[in-house]
Amino acid sequence: MQSEFDFIKRIRDQAAKASAPDLVLGIGDDAAILREREGRETLVTVDLLVEEIDFKLEYAPPRLLGHKALAVSLSDIAAMGGAPAFSLLTLGIPKQFQPSNLKSGVFWEEFFAGYFALAEEHSVSLIGGDLSSTPDRLTIDSVVIGHCRAGGAIRRGGAKVGDAIYLTGPVGASATGLKLLLGGARVSESEEGLAQSALRAHLKPTPRAAFGRRIGERGLAHSMIDVSDGLAQDLARICEESAVAAIVDYDSVPVANEVGLISKGPEVAFDFAVGGGEDFELLLAASGDDEAELFEIAALCGLGLSRIGELVPADQTRPRLLLRRGGEVKPLSIRGFDHFQI
Amino acid sequence: MQSEFDFIKRIRDQAAKASAPDLVLGIGDDAAILREREGRETLVTVDLLVEEIDFKLEYAPPRLLGHKALAVSLSDIAAMGGAPAFSLLTLGIPKQFQPSNLKSGVFWEEFFAGYFALAEEHSVSLIGGDLSSTPDRLTIDSVVIGHCRAGGAIRRGGAKVGDAIYLTGPVGASATGLKLLLGGARVSESEEGLAQSALRAHLKPTPRAAFGRRIGERGLAHSMIDVSDGLAQDLARICEESAVAAIVDYDSVPVANEVGLISKGPEVAFDFAVGGGEDFELLLAASGDDEAELFEIAALCGLGLSRIGELVPADQTRPRLLLRRGGEVKPLSIRGFDHFQI
Repeated sequence: MQSEFDFIKRIRDQAAKASAPDLVLGIGDDAAILREREGRETLVTVDLLVEEIDFKLEYAPPRLLGHKALAVSLSDIAAMGGAPAFSLLTLGIPKQFQPSNLKSGVFWEEFFAGYFALAEEHSVSLIGGDLSSTPDRLTIDSVVIGHCRAGGAIRRGGAKVGDAIYLTGPVGASATGLKLLLGGARVSESEEGLAQSALRAHLKPTPRAAFGRRIGERGLAHSMIDVSDGLAQDLARICEESAVAAIVDYDSVPVANEVGLISKGPEVAFDFAVGGGEDFELLLAASGDDEAELFEIAALCGLGLSRIGELVPADQTRPRLLLRRGGEVKPLSIRGFDHFQI
Repeated sequence: MQSEFDFIKRIRDQAAKASAPDLVLGIGDDAAILREREGRETLVTVDLLVEEIDFKLEYAPPRLLGHKALAVSLSDIAAMGGAPAFSLLTLGIPKQFQPSNLKSGVFWEEFFAGYFALAEEHSVSLIGGDLSSTPDRLTIDSVVIGHCRAGGAIRRGGAKVGDAIYLTGPVGASATGLKLLLGGARVSESEEGLAQSALRAHLKPTPRAAFGRRIGERGLAHSMIDVSDGLAQDLARICEESAVAAIVDYDSVPVANEVGLISKGPEVAFDFAVGGGEDFELLLAASGDDEAELFEIAALCGLGLSRIGELVPADQTRPRLLLRRGGEVKPLSIRGFDHFQI
């Protein structure tokens, strides 16, 4: 059976036959890289959100949906070390949400309030898009264009043996939130507590934009990715693209407190946190020599950075992802979000 | 009832509040315009194609669908007077077309054969995209990025009173093809004739890329748009954005021969041709002084250019679109494709 990964690889191989003078990097990273102007690179990313697959309207308030539609693409630009500038938004709209339906007015006002609030926060201008009817499901395609200095884009493939692995925050809260939502929990602005925090982590993720941009400006990471498909799977992508292997320290991985709401015992929680997607924390490989500066930038951005492991030579006799616990090193199973396995 | 037009206008007004130093033109034209490099402008466009709305798999062979997915966006870049360079492709894929389904292999091979053949023809590099499952319908979102010289992008809003109106080819063939397809006709590579030509006009449209690019290079049009939503509606857009009115000469509008297959009588055929969408001819407003050069470029590109009317002052006492026939001037009704009225 072909996975999403294989499918993309085939398209990527075919696309790679074309070359263009201004193309720096095509398919296969968080964003494509173009050389549109001397001294800087242009980054382009696109993310598709489909009703019933990526969200359900029964639990996703439209304002948060508008926020998330932009947030997921801002996260990709951050993962490249860039700053976002422009966005395009394509909507496939089913009958009940079409402008001719009076009730749809409130839905779109809320949706765009969420979208534009985040756009304003990040100085992003919505410059285009497209609209079409759909037979039944709301479909959102979100494009963001950003910039970084020339040569500054941080790719998945730049990690080196000996690099330390860092993570900008705890993982597992978003997957916990999704599980709670599917179980009937609903987000409420007036409520506080761990459950609400999990729901918000899923419905209203915060892209690590300032951290990503600063890391790009200072050139402090060899490789970076956003944890959208799960820590294990996204770390595996860095390893694959950089031709290295990774050892993750069990005790160093920050498992979100929210995970405790649904997982009994630390080992189950660890597995859930490492396999769960959509946390949108940044995962980076960097030289341990730069650690002080990395922690300083994280603190400036209000993030709690964790050093969770190190990169080692790839070795065909063992898997790419390893887990070190109490001096023992075992394979770390790569589970995560395959967009075709749900 | 709010139309697609009103809906877009509201989003556009909200988006216009944000301004960015490198943004030349945002929502409201065939493509957005960015100033990414001195001496040139960057054009960005996106088009959504949804199964059952924009195409049906029972009549659209996957190779032609791949072609059309790219063609519609190339047409937008041509309508801005630009040359395409890069593309991104987002696919929302239902179960039966997912890579894990063996039968889907042939579908995607054909789809990408069509896509990449057109990309190669226009020197376009596929640089990114996204994939997701969808519950049931195939969804295709096509982004194309192109370039033109600085100040060279041809907007909808630049037309002037006194300009002549030109069209790069006959209209109505695509709408005829769609009607035949819905009636059960199918495209066949081995067959010739008018019906097959109509089917191909709909399923495998040819973007007027070379013509659009040359017009942009030479600065020969004040306004240009591709006829994707119907001649009347797209001409109305030029008039609206340029604050002018248009007189169309009944006898000058080239109605495609294919229309005769389904319309009895020339007047019915005219209405059908002027209201039918997806011809992807270019419609432009230009000075009559440049007519010789316009016809020369069209001939170089293998296109039969027609002068179909002229622009006159907007006047609140009459509609924006007028039809002149035998010395008499009457309103030309604006029918066309509203993406929410189907």
